[in-house]
Parts: sequence; structure tokens; C-alpha cells
Amino acid sequence: MLTKKIQEFLSKDQFETPFLVVDLDIVAKNYQKLVDQLPGVDVFYAVKANPAIPVLELLRDFDSNFDTASIQEIELCLKLGVSPECLSFGHTVKKERDILRAFNLGVKTFAFDSLPELEKIARAAPSTNVFCRFLTPNDGADWPLTDKFGCSPDIAADLLCQAVGLGLNPLGVSFHIGSQQKKPSNWSIALEKARRIFDVTSERGVNLSFLNLGGGFPSQYRVPSCNIEQHTEEIKKGMKKLFDDKVIRAVIEPGRFIVGDAGIIQSEVVLVSQKKYSDHKRWVYLDIGKFGGLPEVLNEAIQYEIKTPYDNEKVGPVVIAGPTCDEVDILYDHSGYQLPLKLSIGDKIEILSAGAYSASYSSVGFNGFPPLKEYYI
Amino acid sequence: MLTKKIQEFLSKDQFETPFLVVDLDIVAKNYQKLVDQLPGVDVFYAVKANPAIPVLELLRDFDSNFDTASIQEIELCLKLGVSPECLSFGHTVKKERDILRAFNLGVKTFAFDSLPELEKIARAAPSTNVFCRFLTPNDGADWPLTDKFGCSPDIAADLLCQAVGLGLNPLGVSFHIGSQQKKPSNWSIALEKARRIFDVTSERGVNLSFLNLGGGFPSQYRVPSCNIEQHTEEIKKGMKKLFDDKVIRAVIEPGRFIVGDAGIIQSEVVLVSQKKYSDHKRWVYLDIGKFGGLPEVLNEAIQYEIKTPYDNEKVGPVVIAGPTCDEVDILYDHSGYQLPLKLSIGDKIEILSAGAYSASYSSVGFNGFPPLKEYYI
Repeated sequence: MLTKKIQEFLSKDQFETPFLVVDLDIVAKNYQKLVDQLPGVDVFYAVKANPAIPVLELLRDFDSNFDTASIQEIELCLKLGVSPECLSFGHTVKKERDILRAFNLGVKTFAFDSLPELEKIARAAPSTNVFCRFLTPNDGADWPLTDKFGCSPDIAADLLCQAVGLGLNPLGVSFHIGSQQKKPSNWSIALEKARRIFDVTSERGVNLSFLNLGGGFPSQYRVPSCNIEQHTEEIKKGMKKLFDDKVIRAVIEPGRFIVGDAGIIQSEVVLVSQKKYSDHKRWVYLDIGKFGGLPEVLNEAIQYEIKTPYDNEKVGPVVIAGPTCDEVDILYDHSGYQLPLKLSIGDKIEILSAGAYSASYSSVGFNGFPPLKEYYI
Repeated sequence: MLTKKIQEFLSKDQFETPFLVVDLDIVAKNYQKLVDQLPGVDVFYAVKANPAIPVLELLRDFDSNFDTASIQEIELCLKLGVSPECLSFGHTVKKERDILRAFNLGVKTFAFDSLPELEKIARAAPSTNVFCRFLTPNDGADWPLTDKFGCSPDIAADLLCQAVGLGLNPLGVSFHIGSQQKKPSNWSIALEKARRIFDVTSERGVNLSFLNLGGGFPSQYRVPSCNIEQHTEEIKKGMKKLFDDKVIRAVIEPGRFIVGDAGIIQSEVVLVSQKKYSDHKRWVYLDIGKFGGLPEVLNEAIQYEIKTPYDNEKVGPVVIAGPTCDEVDILYDHSGYQLPLKLSIGDKIEILSAGAYSASYSSVGFNGFPPLKEYYI
């Protein structure tokens, strides 16, 4: 969103492009919106979406919990005064020495999706709480999910029962319906699978009480996605239908939804050119690309809305390319992007909803370009 | 290559994985090999392939020239004592203020592939040498080339003639047959196009004298590529046939060939797991992936050879995944990789020929993981 605060920041024209600027008021608003929409559900902010200190401090002051992907993220949160009780080591694949470090720092909740990982946790973090991520359909997600995280529900049920014998406390399950998910109906499929795991383990004497719904709540990109209410309504409906008889702790792990729309990237047009006399599709080269903070343009998966100084003027087809010498550093070629014919070298453009999964992916210095600058206002 | 020097380095087991270790003797050997194979052709090392200071210093001491992609790379080379005469600002898309900075630092040779870029150079770096990159077929390349750099040969000829009127010195042309190119026959197609540009401009009174053959020379990955001699023979044959009557300066811009085989990445197996009872394909999670220094596994384009402690033992199919919480951080799923059944958590593996296009692409800290460590021995 080009909020008033961001517009004022940009109007001062103080920094060389490219940079990310995030309006913290929107971060707060998005957080509050989720809390309001899902009363009784605890938020664990997915730190990986944007680990900037001002974002973490703001959410800490809102008493958010944090879903962390690494020991480094855990140490960062603790340094900012977050209690270890509010942290979940949510990555299902961890080095045993990192589990141990987290345990020694007071972290008590760990994710897993395989027996060897469960055994690591049992050795390095005895008597702690564990939850198992299971696989659920994620079609309809813009940012593709694979089978990388999670196991089949029958394995999940077996492992949760085995956890007891390993001296661990099997809390419950987690799943992820896919990032930037356009099909809220996937929630009910996942919730049914979750309930089935609760039932199967219960039959074996293991009573689960924790339901981690993951993320998937969308930001607004070029093609409008469904709104947050469509997601939360599905969740509430599914919870009522399937978990009304259970006393459980339900949690969500939003990342993109909290910070995505809060940030924009300003970039400069470095060149507009023509490749062939016979081809009038222009090539527009920006000073940001795939390796400078926009990894989610991979395979043109996330299609950002782009603002230019001439948005009401006549447009024409373009290929939009990044600044590096790498030939694959192209943002959009096959997605039908059109930009104003007036757009020319030196113009500033804004890439909207770029607050999530951007700056922290910047390369350390490919082609010698420095990492993306970040401002939090 | 697991050279003796690298093996000794690894045997000391002094550093936590993941890291890149580069044997500088191989860098020197590769450089010398190209010089020997192509007498009279000047080498411009493509700094972007690996901008580590020990690599640049070594090549500086061999009197190499340097192909640079950014003002930052230019400043780095100059800081190391490279003469600006030995630098080419080889990126065809540059900010005008960066061209000016390069000009003020003494750089005299600039690439372009469009009229607006030529005009930028004319304004910011008057009276300097320019060469135009044209498009040529690049099928057969493992790392895909697009039309991102270069223009059609007819545009190239027109622009080189226009350069004179803009007060610039039109040196000649450049092209790129594609990175990790398996079809050396592409050289003759490109050389014929180049000759045609020389002839067309000559008819208009502009005599070119510079032929930049680009890169494309392969490293050795999982499936053996053609060897360097097949490339250099094609070049020599083509040059003799097409440019024997011309007095020209021919240059090459190798990057991957110089540093690729010289480096290996050591990584640790973090988890080996099973997703479904019905699927016996194992998932092997490493502590390095797409966002930690292996960008060229994108779409499984570059297929690295992987060494394990059990290379003569029985193998089985695997998906190989990276350490981040990003679902797309998978190295290989569809390329038929097999790894030893014995491979387990904590084992160290080596990713061979990883000296090029690796460390400098590492993310600054996605998931909190630090950038890839590098050692030059």
C-alpha cells in the first residue's frame, strides 16, 4: 500500500534506490485484524517473512508469539526481550546442536515431521512439547508448496504416539494450506485430516490439545486475492464443526499477511530498450530483481502490482528485467505485464506489497550490488 | 575437484558447514589452460563468477583483464591495483551515474546493446570505446540464456555506426553463446553473425577491430560436458575462416571455466526422512540450498556432482532439499539423483565444481542463516 506515511517518505527523495520502506502502522493494523477475526486463536508471527527488528519489537509489544525457523531467529527474538515461552522452533528440520542451543535458551516447543527428527528432539530437548506437521493439499497457492515439510497423516499419528515413549509431550499437529492461498476451502480439508489424527491418537491413549493452522493468509498483489475474512470464516466454520467438543489451543503462523501489504520497494528504471526492429515489446530494466530482494518472482509466481508516474497514460507490453548480469534475472516475461509508453530511464517506480519475503533474501553482493536497503517508519 | 589440497583442508575438520573452499592452484591452471589454448586472445575474467579477493589478486598477477558488471566490481578491482585499462564495463545496462563514476576512475571501454545506453555513455564517458552485444542462438546451454542482453545484428550494426556521430569510438562486437554450453557448433553461427556486422559497418565507413567472444566454457558437473578443447578448436577454426583477413583484438570473458572446478562446497546432512509409508524415495536435507549459495539449482539447471562418504555402496532415489523453511528450496527432485542408502544425519557431503556463481549469491540472512563461508587455499 502506498500509505500517506510512505508517500511522504518517498516525497523527500532522500535515498538512492532500490529500497524497501515499511509502514509499521499497517503491520500493527494487520496483526490486530487477525486477532479480531480469530478470537481465542494465538498468533505466532512467522519471523522469516520479515525479521527486521522494528517489526519484531512492534509485535513483541502486542504480545505476539513467534514462529522461528532457526537458532539465529530464536536468538534475535530473545535479544529483543521476547520470552522463550512465546517461541516455537517451527522448522521441522533442525541440526541437533541447534535444538540443544534452543533448549538451553528455554525454548520448549518444537516441530517435527519424521522419526529421526523426533529422536533428535528427545535427545537434545528432553520432556519438551512437540507437534507434528502433516501434509495437506495446497493447490490454489501462488507460491508453490511441495512435500518438503510434513508427513502423511498416518505417519503423523504414529509419531505422535511414539513421542510419549521418547519422553516428549506430544502437543498436537500443524499444517500449511499454501502461501498466498486463493482457495479457502482447503482449510476444511486440512481440518478434517487434523481431526482424524486427534481421533486416531486418542484411541491409542494420546490426547492432543494443540492445533497449529499455519499461514497462507494473502497479501494483495496484481490480481486481487480473496480477502482475509474468507479465510477466517472458513477456519471458524471448520473449527466449530470439527473441534467444538475439544478443549484445544489453536494457533496461526501468519507472515505474509502481517508484513506484505505494509511495505513497498522503490526502484529506478535503468533502461528501456528494444531488442529487434520487428519486436515492439519493450524491455524495462529495473535496479532490483530476483537476486536483490524479489525472489518470489521466480517462475513469475508472485505478481506484484507496479506503480509508475504515468499510471493513467497509454500502456504497452513489456518484459521487466532485473539489474544483474544473470540472464535469468527477469521479473516478468510471460505474465502479460503492460507499462506506460512514457516510462523512461531514471523514472522511479513502486513495487507494492513487497514487505514480506524480500529484503532478507537479498544476495550478499552478486554482481557487486549491495543488499536491499530497508526503512521502517 | 577434490584436489589433494582441498582434501587436506577438509581432513582438518576445522570449520562448521556449510562452506566453500577453493583451490587457487586450479584457478591458475584453468587460466593458463585457456591462454595456452587460445594464443593471441586476451582474457577478461568475468568477476561476477567469483569476486573473491584471492581469486582477483591471482588473476591480476597473471596480467588478466577483467570484465566487470557494476561500479562496485570496478572499484574492487582498482583497489587491488588492477589498471583501469584492463577493465571493461561489460554490463549492457548501467545507471548513467555509474558510467560517469567509472569514466572518472579511468575506465575506457563500455558495452551497450541499445541506443539509449549508447547515449548515456556518450554523455557520461565521452570519446571512450564501445562495443555492442548482439543476440545469437544459445540452445545447448545448461544455464539458460534469454534475450536479456544483446540486440539483433542489424540493430547492432546501425548503433555502431551511430556511435561515431555521438563522439564515441565503436570498437566492435560481443556475444554470448550461453553459459555451460554443450554445443560448440554455436561458435561458428555467432562468428558468422559477427563477421556480417563487421562487413555491414565497413560498407558504411566504420571499421571494427574488436571481437569479444564472451564466455560459455564449461565446468564439469554430474553429466560430463564437452571439454575445453572442443570449444577452443571451434573458435580457432571459425576465426581462421572468418577473420583471417582482419587485424583484430579478440577477447574472451570466462568466469565459470576459471573458478567452477576449483571449488567445492562441504555441507552436512541435517535429516533423511520419509514422507509417506507408500513412498520410499528418501528426502535428504542439507544445510545449503537455493538461497544459501546454490542459485544455479533453479529449475535443476546445473546438476552438481555430489560426493558422500559411501560412494561405492548401494544407492536409492532421493529428493535433495535445502535448509530454509521455503518450500521451493529444493535442489533436485526430478533429475534422478540417487544417494547411498547408508547416508545419514550428520554425514558430510561435498558438492563438486561449486566455485562459480555460488557464495556471492548467498542471501544476507533468509531464515536467519548466515551467508556461505568461503576459504581460498
